[in-house]
Amino acid sequence: MEYTTFYFIVGSGVLALIFALWRSSWIAKQDEGTEKMIEIGLAVREGAMAFLAREYKVLSIFVLAVAVLLYIGNISQGTELVAVSFVVGAFCSALAGFFGMRVATLANNRTTQAARTSLNKALIVAFNGGSVMGLSVVGLGIIGLTILFWVYGGLDSAANLGRVMTILSGFAMGASSIALFARVGGGIFTKAADVGADLVGKVEAGLPEDDPRNPATIADNVGDNVGDVAGMGADLFESYVGSIIGAMVLAAAAGVSNLVMLPLLLAGIGIVVSIVGTFFVRTSEGGNPQTALNIGTFGAGALMIVISYFVIDYVMPTAVNMSGKDVSGLDVFLATIAGLVAGITVGLLTEYYTSESRKPARAIAKSSETGAATNIIAGLANGMYSTAWPVVTIALAIIVAYYFSGLYGIAIAALGMLSTTGIQLAVDAYRPIADNAGGCAEMSGLPAEVRKRTDKLDAVGNTTAAIGKGFAIGSAALTALALFAAYRETVGQSMAGGLVLDINDPFVMAGLLIGGVLPFVFSSFAMKAVGEAAFEMIEEVRRQFREIKGLLEGQAKADYARCVDIATAAAIKRMIAPGLLAILTPVLFGLVFKSATMLGGVLAGVTVSGVLLAIFMANAGGSWDNAKKYIESGELGGKGSATHKAAVVGDTVGDPFKDTAGPSLNILIKLMSVVSLVIAPLI
Amino acid sequence: MEYTTFYFIVGSGVLALIFALWRSSWIAKQDEGTEKMIEIGLAVREGAMAFLAREYKVLSIFVLAVAVLLYIGNISQGTELVAVSFVVGAFCSALAGFFGMRVATLANNRTTQAARTSLNKALIVAFNGGSVMGLSVVGLGIIGLTILFWVYGGLDSAANLGRVMTILSGFAMGASSIALFARVGGGIFTKAADVGADLVGKVEAGLPEDDPRNPATIADNVGDNVGDVAGMGADLFESYVGSIIGAMVLAAAAGVSNLVMLPLLLAGIGIVVSIVGTFFVRTSEGGNPQTALNIGTFGAGALMIVISYFVIDYVMPTAVNMSGKDVSGLDVFLATIAGLVAGITVGLLTEYYTSESRKPARAIAKSSETGAATNIIAGLANGMYSTAWPVVTIALAIIVAYYFSGLYGIAIAALGMLSTTGIQLAVDAYRPIADNAGGCAEMSGLPAEVRKRTDKLDAVGNTTAAIGKGFAIGSAALTALALFAAYRETVGQSMAGGLVLDINDPFVMAGLLIGGVLPFVFSSFAMKAVGEAAFEMIEEVRRQFREIKGLLEGQAKADYARCVDIATAAAIKRMIAPGLLAILTPVLFGLVFKSATMLGGVLAGVTVSGVLLAIFMANAGGSWDNAKKYIESGELGGKGSATHKAAVVGDTVGDPFKDTAGPSLNILIKLMSVVSLVIAPLI
Repeated sequence: MEYTTFYFIVGSGVLALIFALWRSSWIAKQDEGTEKMIEIGLAVREGAMAFLAREYKVLSIFVLAVAVLLYIGNISQGTELVAVSFVVGAFCSALAGFFGMRVATLANNRTTQAARTSLNKALIVAFNGGSVMGLSVVGLGIIGLTILFWVYGGLDSAANLGRVMTILSGFAMGASSIALFARVGGGIFTKAADVGADLVGKVEAGLPEDDPRNPATIADNVGDNVGDVAGMGADLFESYVGSIIGAMVLAAAAGVSNLVMLPLLLAGIGIVVSIVGTFFVRTSEGGNPQTALNIGTFGAGALMIVISYFVIDYVMPTAVNMSGKDVSGLDVFLATIAGLVAGITVGLLTEYYTSESRKPARAIAKSSETGAATNIIAGLANGMYSTAWPVVTIALAIIVAYYFSGLYGIAIAALGMLSTTGIQLAVDAYRPIADNAGGCAEMSGLPAEVRKRTDKLDAVGNTTAAIGKGFAIGSAALTALALFAAYRETVGQSMAGGLVLDINDPFVMAGLLIGGVLPFVFSSFAMKAVGEAAFEMIEEVRRQFREIKGLLEGQAKADYARCVDIATAAAIKRMIAPGLLAILTPVLFGLVFKSATMLGGVLAGVTVSGVLLAIFMANAGGSWDNAKKYIESGELGGKGSATHKAAVVGDTVGDPFKDTAGPSLNILIKLMSVVSLVIAPLI
Repeated sequence: MEYTTFYFIVGSGVLALIFALWRSSWIAKQDEGTEKMIEIGLAVREGAMAFLAREYKVLSIFVLAVAVLLYIGNISQGTELVAVSFVVGAFCSALAGFFGMRVATLANNRTTQAARTSLNKALIVAFNGGSVMGLSVVGLGIIGLTILFWVYGGLDSAANLGRVMTILSGFAMGASSIALFARVGGGIFTKAADVGADLVGKVEAGLPEDDPRNPATIADNVGDNVGDVAGMGADLFESYVGSIIGAMVLAAAAGVSNLVMLPLLLAGIGIVVSIVGTFFVRTSEGGNPQTALNIGTFGAGALMIVISYFVIDYVMPTAVNMSGKDVSGLDVFLATIAGLVAGITVGLLTEYYTSESRKPARAIAKSSETGAATNIIAGLANGMYSTAWPVVTIALAIIVAYYFSGLYGIAIAALGMLSTTGIQLAVDAYRPIADNAGGCAEMSGLPAEVRKRTDKLDAVGNTTAAIGKGFAIGSAALTALALFAAYRETVGQSMAGGLVLDINDPFVMAGLLIGGVLPFVFSSFAMKAVGEAAFEMIEEVRRQFREIKGLLEGQAKADYARCVDIATAAAIKRMIAPGLLAILTPVLFGLVFKSATMLGGVLAGVTVSGVLLAIFMANAGGSWDNAKKYIESGELGGKGSATHKAAVVGDTVGDPFKDTAGPSLNILIKLMSVVSLVIAPLI
């Protein structure tokens, strides 16, 4: 049976890539529009690709250096192939990012052109663009993992599984490393460009959004691509493979070989279901694109649940022993559902605390009437409060998943949220394409109705995006715990009674405190980086307005490329410190201090504090953003009022919260767990 | 020997009260100044006392209700006297607050009057006023504890010690409960009044600070007293008795009776040393009051270290067994020093991250040049980063203290910081008196040189205050851990192998997450409460300007009492929810869910996340405050510039951070631990 499963899984990955290729070539054939549109599209594409090239250059040095260290360090254990897994994981993630962003930047102006004729056509171009990112990620993820698993002999001998998984875990470490740098770097780029374009272009010079006279406008559009397409893609690639590997390692540690394959199998089914889902994304002129996206994603999710039930039942004909429990197929299925329900709940809570139409964001808008300070206090208070129910939900999911299937249940619960990543990511990546298409319409001077259509596309998907965020946070917490459990199992093998992490032990408690501090330090780095990079961008935009004669009158052309360059250099320089912090901390405690217990405390501390800060920052940022939008919709004095100005302050503070620091924290906690897992045999 | 020690300890407490009484009567005899000054002094005093009366009324209902529940719940265990300890602890704390604030409000206008003639005279009146608070707290704390310990039979039978300490721990719970409500209530009052006075009076109406035409100005001065005198006093009362009881419980659990008395003995010596220290606080006209305060506090500290060494050596002639270690007198002394060094380090770090003359606050001032948003981002980033080294310091202190003396070492390290609370609190309470004296000078229309003298008094003590903050945070973390350890020992007595809190256990992990979320929710409550109370105050001040004819022209009198009333009602109403959250959570997990492991996780989670948020909020708030002051000193455009306006936004956000939520978190973590300890026998 195992080889049949193997062929199916690899086949589903290949199918994903063929589908992505097919969609790419379809997009390439679409009309590019006017000469001006082609020019703008090209500028954004070139800027985005230049950023990626420079980012990958830095990362390849990092990857090679780490690979050499991993290889040398693991020779004594005979696990030096972990270096290969690491490189392959990093490469697959980078490749998926490259594909996805290349096609997204091709789709931008083609979506604009499509929007000149019909809403449905524009929706399809944009969504197809996003689906290339989505399916490249899952396709490359599953092919890379499965092929390595096979090469390392995972299919041949059940006795060998523990060693194979130790080696394979390098794949997740590679993916996590790329993800952290891509998220942080992309986040810095996009916010620096955004702030530069807004603060000087819009506020100081009084230009409208996406005005071609604004030198930072191309950089702003490039930022959407490097942050929301490439950054997000690497992020989800990491979540996806992390949750799969977490479950596989725990199953291997328990010695249950059919449960080792199950995560891959579920992921393979998720790919097929995602592809099916994409065909349901259609709308008519005047129709609601939201409905189309909902049918696609929720339909795929529902289908996934039904098929999972039968597949799990088939893979597990009898109950097995996991963490000292008798676990049946139904138990594993219920753990999966616990994860899914928790993810959706967290997502809906996210929507509640951030949505423009709900009480919290409206209260923040109201508090802007007494100025920026009360707006900030209200947003921070809302963000802090908003951590409560999501964290309780996650805590319950942990207990329920464990109740049904032990530690494996926690890992499979995370996978429950991520199995349909293919279509979820397609929806996520669709939005920046629609956003860019709007920018292109504006800069090319197309009629207002075109922009109206792209705005309509950009405005939808809030619920889907919120649930995506819920999945991101929920699965990050569960995957981090699964990887953390895998770390303990690996370290504990050589200890009588396993690795006990008793909080009574002062080293564990000290570890908890030090781990808890890391997300604060990391967020501080990220926010400072955005501030500094934005400052450079502001200076440059001011310089161009000052030095380029006739720019503001529309008689001279802005030097877009210089702005893109500055954002690129700033982002790449500043992504390094937070990235190294995440990778070196486990190495310091594990290999320098040689304290498996203290490192255990650090991991638990970073997970707890990371989840809290991630939710706090994402929701505070989201609610500030929507409070401002609510005022801009004409409420409480509308655009340009003192209330609006106060709300803009909150929105600006929220930008690095929700787009740089917040989402990076999800990766941070997993990266630290996976680094610990990889170095576990050496402690 | 024990009775001799007992007499010395009680004697030192009585000495403290006699000293406080002597200082009070001395202050009462000082000249009150002009009729206007008497009137203002009276208004502030009446407002402050009215607040206290209303607060105590609400608290007495709470205390009685909890006492009844404690009594009934403990009958089955024969520990119902814990209810008595609880009531006595609450009463002693409230009484200390009453004494301290009564004398502080007497000292206010007398300090102003003294400042009309000399700086030294003003310093002495203000400092003597503060020293009444300081010595009332330590005197009542130690007398209450020691007498109860004697009444319960703690001196008579070593076998009985465990039970005595279980009963006695109610004293700390009483003190903590009062402290939490007093800190939160006082914090809300003071910030609501402050924001109301500033935003409407200063910004909208353009009045100078402390102008008598501003209706909120008396409330603002009352706020300084209820927040910085009564709130702070209750806070330190709680820290003081909490650290003593934490050490006593752990010594009793280890069955080492001479170590049970040691914390009380050290506290008694600390009182004598503090009284000696107060006599060194003297300065000359043109002299630096800072030097005077430093000689007093650091002199007392140094003396304490020397005496401690000999006392500990005398009490512990031979090594004893604690947490499975052989612990000598030198070991216990070194643990004490570890705490002291950690506290001073955290304090100096606090000063670095917040001081007007250091890089971080200046960088925040600089970032205000690009507006309020960048000011906020820089302040938040600084606050987050500033958690790193203090937490590492605390983690090291935990490991070092444990290394020398086991869990007892952690508790005694906390006491190392707090033994000279008498003089430390005198310095803390001296500042609001100087602040109020300045307000009185302004409102009474005294010559500028008077205000200059009081400003000079108000401006000093930064280093002392910063170290005080370091002690507050450091000792809170260590005391919480000690109480937490005491909880585990108590619960673990009935379990084979004791209570193991393994992070691998999903209930512990879920507890960690839920515990971690509480400080976020608590802070959110506190910040929202300040926002809402400030809003009511703003409305009232605007109403008075609108409705009282001739007020702004100085021809009519403002209705000060109405503002005081509004702040009082708002603060008392809003202190209840956060207070109940802290008390009910351990009850929920311990007595409703009956899960000692999950409650253990919750306590560890609340401690880690509470310490992080407390440092983050205190330092972010402090740095915003000083960034604004730096600009006001004439830098970067000075007062009234756009840069200054941006910095004011940060300062306003920082107010509830540093004066309401931040310091309350220190109490929250201890209160939850002590409630758990008290209910431990019932779980």
